[in-house]
Amino acid sequence: MTAPNPELSRMRASIDNLDSAIVCLLAERFKITQAVGRLKAELGLPAADPDREGEQIQRLRELARAANLDPEFAEKFLTFIVSEVVRHHEQIAQEAKS
Amino acid sequence: MTAPNPELSRMRASIDNLDSAIVCLLAERFKITQAVGRLKAELGLPAADPDREGEQIQRLRELARAANLDPEFAEKFLTFIVSEVVRHHEQIAQEAKS
Repeated sequence: MTAPNPELSRMRASIDNLDSAIVCLLAERFKITQAVGRLKAELGLPAADPDREGEQIQRLRELARAANLDPEFAEKFLTFIVSEVVRHHEQIAQEAKS
Repeated sequence: MTAPNPELSRMRASIDNLDSAIVCLLAERFKITQAVGRLKAELGLPAADPDREGEQIQRLRELARAANLDPEFAEKFLTFIVSEVVRHHEQIAQEAKS
């Protein structure tokens, strides 16, 4: 095994720092979406909301463009997160019924 | 169409703020991974690095646990991001050859 290139090691340390920040923000985001799920179950609202999701995609695509991130990737990212959230909301609604 | 519940609107505004922060961090992360891709192409290193990826997954799972985020989700998230990064690196290596 060869020693890693020092420039590569530095870049990887920055990636790790950014990942730590992103994981903490995702943890906070899921805390809120869990609360949204409980509220939706109380109000009898469906887990998925295509109108809201469409607005979120549009907003994130614009933000991505401004930050020089591929808007396609931003959209794929949101779809990935939302599918996880909807899965949680369906579980919460199921538990509320039982 | 009914007016949205005010509590739901407040939670959604927080989700939007967190998403803005996450998108900016992802933009920064991709700037670095693009540079990693160029460096790997220069050094003739392969786009994917299973050892590094294994370490990243382990680290993020532990961070997720500490932040009360599902470690499975943190792992799925990293796999999702890394597959996008590897796709970019393969493109860069392809362009370097042509």
